[in-house]
Amino acid sequence: MTADTTPAELEQALADAAGAAAALGSAEPAVRAGWIRAVADALDAAADELVPIAMRETSLPEPRLRGEVGRSTGQLRMFADALVEGSLLEVIIDTADAQAKPVPRPDLRRVLVPLGPVLVFAASNFPFAFSVCGGDTASALAAGCPVIVKAHPGHPELSVRTAAVMIEALRAAGAPDGSLGLILGFDVGVIALKDPRITAAGFTGSVPAGKALHEISVTRPEPIPFYGELGSLNPVFVTQAAIDARGNDIATGYVGSFTLGVGQFCTKPGLLFLPAGHGLQDKLTEAAGGVASATMLNDRIKDTFDSGLDRLGKVDGVRVWSAGGATLLQTTVSELLARQDEILEECFGPVSIVVEYDGLDELRSAIAAFDGNLTATLHAEESDNELATELLPLLTARAGRVLWNGWPTGVAVSWAQHHGGPFPSTVGSIHTSVGVTAARRFQRPVAYQDAPDPVLPAVLRDANPLGITRRINGVISQDEVER
Amino acid sequence: MTADTTPAELEQALADAAGAAAALGSAEPAVRAGWIRAVADALDAAADELVPIAMRETSLPEPRLRGEVGRSTGQLRMFADALVEGSLLEVIIDTADAQAKPVPRPDLRRVLVPLGPVLVFAASNFPFAFSVCGGDTASALAAGCPVIVKAHPGHPELSVRTAAVMIEALRAAGAPDGSLGLILGFDVGVIALKDPRITAAGFTGSVPAGKALHEISVTRPEPIPFYGELGSLNPVFVTQAAIDARGNDIATGYVGSFTLGVGQFCTKPGLLFLPAGHGLQDKLTEAAGGVASATMLNDRIKDTFDSGLDRLGKVDGVRVWSAGGATLLQTTVSELLARQDEILEECFGPVSIVVEYDGLDELRSAIAAFDGNLTATLHAEESDNELATELLPLLTARAGRVLWNGWPTGVAVSWAQHHGGPFPSTVGSIHTSVGVTAARRFQRPVAYQDAPDPVLPAVLRDANPLGITRRINGVISQDEVER
Repeated sequence: MTADTTPAELEQALADAAGAAAALGSAEPAVRAGWIRAVADALDAAADELVPIAMRETSLPEPRLRGEVGRSTGQLRMFADALVEGSLLEVIIDTADAQAKPVPRPDLRRVLVPLGPVLVFAASNFPFAFSVCGGDTASALAAGCPVIVKAHPGHPELSVRTAAVMIEALRAAGAPDGSLGLILGFDVGVIALKDPRITAAGFTGSVPAGKALHEISVTRPEPIPFYGELGSLNPVFVTQAAIDARGNDIATGYVGSFTLGVGQFCTKPGLLFLPAGHGLQDKLTEAAGGVASATMLNDRIKDTFDSGLDRLGKVDGVRVWSAGGATLLQTTVSELLARQDEILEECFGPVSIVVEYDGLDELRSAIAAFDGNLTATLHAEESDNELATELLPLLTARAGRVLWNGWPTGVAVSWAQHHGGPFPSTVGSIHTSVGVTAARRFQRPVAYQDAPDPVLPAVLRDANPLGITRRINGVISQDEVER
Repeated sequence: MTADTTPAELEQALADAAGAAAALGSAEPAVRAGWIRAVADALDAAADELVPIAMRETSLPEPRLRGEVGRSTGQLRMFADALVEGSLLEVIIDTADAQAKPVPRPDLRRVLVPLGPVLVFAASNFPFAFSVCGGDTASALAAGCPVIVKAHPGHPELSVRTAAVMIEALRAAGAPDGSLGLILGFDVGVIALKDPRITAAGFTGSVPAGKALHEISVTRPEPIPFYGELGSLNPVFVTQAAIDARGNDIATGYVGSFTLGVGQFCTKPGLLFLPAGHGLQDKLTEAAGGVASATMLNDRIKDTFDSGLDRLGKVDGVRVWSAGGATLLQTTVSELLARQDEILEECFGPVSIVVEYDGLDELRSAIAAFDGNLTATLHAEESDNELATELLPLLTARAGRVLWNGWPTGVAVSWAQHHGGPFPSTVGSIHTSVGVTAARRFQRPVAYQDAPDPVLPAVLRDANPLGITRRINGVISQDEVER
């Protein structure tokens, strides 16, 4: 049992973070990138120690957790690379133009600067990739913000050890003390969120908790941005042509996706829309029946899952096709539309609902029934391209990531990734929590007007001494500025 | 007198905006850019009609208002250009990588899509540039969002005529009906802000109004982003070397800046910090004494200004140096620090305070006393570079734009501009309301995973048929994608 952070320890963590902000934020990009790479290296080196703790605390299997460490350290290095290349700073330079109309234009140089200390509420279901060393922490450090992580109570020992490894790596690499801190305890997190030294917050978790923390953030005397990833149903829509071409693969792929990590993914496909007469019931129940029971992340999640299953099983028009390690339910679009408040509610765990649609109008109605989601998926063939072109805007309106012929579980970490969708899947849908642009959540622009070259930060100087990528008079390059 | 929008008219405006969203948002960039250019052309052509209305309703002089029309139409064209060039859409493409570790990477293509209908609360003090045809409207239309402008009651006839010119231009150019709407009335604006069809709001105005509207936006059942520009003191700090080199120019420049537009600029320099013994009192009072009285925007602003002047004049330690068309007050840093709650409060109108500092420690203390501002300005000479380098981070922490040897009034419209600062000058300091990146406030990312090329929006297709600028596997280019 790990004790809650005391008020004195919290005050120290906040003071340390505030104290680190200037030095961390003003470090040159390559220097800060070096500190981040040191963290990645230390985590890789500590995997043999950390993974067993994670296995014990989360009941997740070793290969998954080792993959998650690799994903997390790869993510840290991606941010370091983007920092050195310079795009993470979004430098924009417009040189003076004495002839500009209606008035002469001054020299303006814009760069993104860090907001200040960031509070990260860690998730339970990815003890590395969305926890202490996860994307919120990585993107905030890359932005130049000190981070205080509020540990998830599901893996306290792992949180403490992960933070210790990272803090030691930062210290050894020369980063300012206070660049990273860890706090434990629900009330402690709320107190920290209200502290004026905290300038932004990231959160991954349930809808009620996310809404409550969001309200605290935006109604503080000084409101701060709150980025919350709350919950998602991740519907999958399958055309008849896709069934004809690869129905069995779709059945097994679906079951594999909704039971991955014991169904404890925010991108778990919660509903699979199949054309009536799909003929896949046997294949689906066979695949679901073959899924072994597995321990969930913790007792609270297990209790919530059990009551959710119980609730869903009692909804009129919802039938049980398979129960056990994976629960497969079935309904129809007309029944779903009649009881959408009951059926369209996330149930976190290894359960999903097959929804049968009767014709394309029902498919369109089903898509329209959804609020915001992290993902929406279409399984279709080339012969469906006209239909797919029509459905694309409908799916885009309801999701942050739209997939073809794949499964939403698994979120690649890359430049182009977007993880976040319209409300209620995300609070702050204009930002992502995965991918290089996630750093932007913790940066604000500053423009320097007519500042002398020697006084400017190196990234803004004429000679581009750091060789970063910049936009100069509208054109992106690594060039020097000609005045 | 222009009547408030009726409930039936508001419902029509909201329905029209929602109805326009899909067509406006999915229009190809060059097509949407054409509609925006048509609006700019129509406004330029209507200037002879609109400017006299603006003169009558706002008491602002003709040259200023003609300049403002040019600024506004130039801004619309800037957004159109950025749309065609493509950077406004921030396309990022990562091609599939079967060898990626720890897992193969899918093809991911990210683009910014419009949020949906945007509500813009127009400002009083720039009847063109921050009103119906201002930056919020221009950036939202560029993003592909229908706009409903809540007219400022200070210039209702101008608002109605401006909207009519723009709506007719949009219609003639082929834009969807409902791309732009206008509503009038305080309560009407609040009702619109709560409507689920509104997906974001922009605001320029007072701190109390901005805070109230912000709270409505973020505590709705579906919270929406609210971008508010509320108020700013815009301090100016002058070194002894700058006084020695060009004291008289600083004195006249300062008076010109704080009295520009009858002091009704959000970037008005509210305080000028001069070294004790500056010897500029006579020059300053002479310049301020030479400013003729002028009519303010409206009676409410005049009343608020008069009571603000009255309040400031009674603060202990604040002395009146000059009164009349321009009011010049004087105090010292030690007196300011003793009564900073009373002195550091924006007074909108032709008044400013000279604050004398005694040594660099007092100058540093003065800078530290400020909350967030839109701008902070330093007047310094080359011999001050060491001091300036030290002060830069302090100024950056407190402002969104930092100026050298200039005056904060006048906000150039360009790629690199940033107009927005830490709270309370802005709600949402990570965004700007001026410059190309202002569009981002009304866009959210969507990533398409493994989508077939013919189904993708043209901007994401392999061949780059529109020739826009994109980031492909981390590198920015106008190239085709090689799979």
